[in-house]
Amino acid sequence: MNKQELFEQIQKKKSFLCIGLDPVLDKLPKHLLKYNDPILEFNKQLIDATNDLCVAYKPNTAFYESRGVKGWETLVNTWKHFPKDVFTIADAKRGDIGNTSAMYAEAFFKEESSQMSFDSITVAPYMGKDSVAPFLNHPNKWVILLALTSNSGSQDFQIKQSDNQKLYEQVITTSQKWATSDQMMYVVGATKPEEFQNIRQLAPDHFLLVPGIGAQGGSLSAVCQNGLNSQCGLLINSARNIIYASDGLDFAEKAREEALTLQQEMEQILITAKLI
Amino acid sequence: MNKQELFEQIQKKKSFLCIGLDPVLDKLPKHLLKYNDPILEFNKQLIDATNDLCVAYKPNTAFYESRGVKGWETLVNTWKHFPKDVFTIADAKRGDIGNTSAMYAEAFFKEESSQMSFDSITVAPYMGKDSVAPFLNHPNKWVILLALTSNSGSQDFQIKQSDNQKLYEQVITTSQKWATSDQMMYVVGATKPEEFQNIRQLAPDHFLLVPGIGAQGGSLSAVCQNGLNSQCGLLINSARNIIYASDGLDFAEKAREEALTLQQEMEQILITAKLI
Repeated sequence: MNKQELFEQIQKKKSFLCIGLDPVLDKLPKHLLKYNDPILEFNKQLIDATNDLCVAYKPNTAFYESRGVKGWETLVNTWKHFPKDVFTIADAKRGDIGNTSAMYAEAFFKEESSQMSFDSITVAPYMGKDSVAPFLNHPNKWVILLALTSNSGSQDFQIKQSDNQKLYEQVITTSQKWATSDQMMYVVGATKPEEFQNIRQLAPDHFLLVPGIGAQGGSLSAVCQNGLNSQCGLLINSARNIIYASDGLDFAEKAREEALTLQQEMEQILITAKLI
Repeated sequence: MNKQELFEQIQKKKSFLCIGLDPVLDKLPKHLLKYNDPILEFNKQLIDATNDLCVAYKPNTAFYESRGVKGWETLVNTWKHFPKDVFTIADAKRGDIGNTSAMYAEAFFKEESSQMSFDSITVAPYMGKDSVAPFLNHPNKWVILLALTSNSGSQDFQIKQSDNQKLYEQVITTSQKWATSDQMMYVVGATKPEEFQNIRQLAPDHFLLVPGIGAQGGSLSAVCQNGLNSQCGLLINSARNIIYASDGLDFAEKAREEALTLQQEMEQILITAKLI
């Protein structure tokens, strides 16, 4: 899905919600445990209940890998269940030397190899240009580069200042030499809303993937105040608040209610910003 | 395997060689293609032919993930084939917010969950302390943190200077508050031998995992000159030069010859340094 198509989906669905599919077996509704693959069933019912309210899904690979081979099967089968009109994000935070990142790109982009082909992958910037470039060789695929993350550890290195720029600002500035806003997005945590004004000066046209609202404490309106651009430019992720809205038989219905609340807030924001 | 045991293995085998198991199907000896899992057979024969000459094996997860579910099966079965006396490294370069890194730790350390339990995992430092800490909660397991990598992209961010330290130096200094040299190692590329003197001042007691000799151009003797410490303190990785030494029926034998050449060089270095 390209940038224009993503914006069209946002306008059509009046939403820039991304739902994080980070399932843990212990937290699943008990009635799902009778299924051969309870996590797959959980994901499928969540996707079926929410896909008209969100524009993206983001499974975090850690939650699948933790279950070994069967977890990886669940990830593949979850990918197969995504509707065609959603933007899909492999939240994998990969990155390695060139020939190795090329293998990661096959893992998440090349269906002939891995039976999966996400629209995008999150990538860690620490190893620099040649660790990112192989992902960009895949046409119509996106790199979502970690910039300023939502966790407390973001303060350890990401805000270190050199050459009058913080490290995360250097990541945003330098990586714009590697790809345009048609192939790159940045991860910026909702827990740092005061940074969005500055980030929009550095990257006015890029989409930003924003985790950290809900369980991590970030605010949707604070992020939108300075984060919106002329094509919306934001994908706001919510995971735990939606997928664990209930652990009963009504989990998918309650997840839909949570997603609907966010979609309605987003619709108002899009109207106010004259984007729909 | 703890630090003392690792040093004892180094003394016993007169080697500080780590073999990188980064197999690509296209490069495999053709006679292996008749096997149900050619890559597993390749790995098993390599391990059987070389395990008395090396102290560690390091499969890079990208080469397995690129083949989807069946690649993940190969990784699990390769792990099962490792002898008990080798140090095992999941070269996965993971790292995410705390609750997610905890899932990655289960993926690579907790056999009940994932059918694998490596001794160690490589971790990217960009997201800071809480992205690393969950791996350290597993007793007798190691984090191998990326510091100065062997690729050209290491020059993009890792050498940025702030507070009179380069970023990779800050990673080494700051992370020592998170764990001792009994649970943490650093990745330092062999392509920067001039940096080892400085790194040994910052981390005199830590083991360093050193990729980049051979195909990437680094020199063993240059690394050892400033890199050795009183418990050796180095794991030198070689992958392509060993595993692709031949693509014929004799591939394992030729791999052994390459490993033996390195082991013999290492033996001389250990004798000269009075470590054996």
